[in-house]
Amino acid sequence: GDYEPMEGEGKMNMKIDLDSKKVVNMEELAAGDKKVYCRCWLSGTFPLCDGTHAKHNDATGDNVGPLIVSGPKKE
Amino acid sequence: GDYEPMEGEGKMNMKIDLDSKKVVNMEELAAGDKKVYCRCWLSGTFPLCDGTHAKHNDATGDNVGPLIVSGPKKE
Ligand code: FES
Ligand code: FES
Repeated sequence: GDYEPMEGEGKMNMKIDLDSKKVVNMEELAAGDKKVYCRCWLSGTFPLCDGTHAKHNDATGDNVGPLIVSGPKKE
Repeated sequence: GDYEPMEGEGKMNMKIDLDSKKVVNMEELAAGDKKVYCRCWLSGTFPLCDGTHAKHNDATGDNVGPLIVSGPKKE
């Protein structure tokens, strides 16, 4: 293909569901929910964030962090 | 610290908000919303997924994919 990886672009996921061709997660939020989701592929509670991104950033010079998603407010 | 990076663990983010110490995004979903969020740090529409993960996976042997989050059903 014509995709050129960026310099330094390598595997991100060394840990999560390695037998899967592509790791996709589906989540549903109820009203009043607020969840913190991992984007560093290192969490022990994946797909949720457990804070490991901070150690990864310190160790590698990366700057990744979680996605926080809220459902609508409860009525 | 006592954190040992995994073998091959390196920077994941070469592109998004590189001047930020840590990239955290906050999202709110309304009832009936369904959104697809990037976890490969390569999307042109970050924090949303634009499908680039597939090219990244082909190029690097990775198996990363998006997080899909739905709000509660509309009444
Ligand atoms: S543990 Fe992965 S983003 Fe927080
Ligand atoms: S473009 Fe990054 S997960 Fe889809």
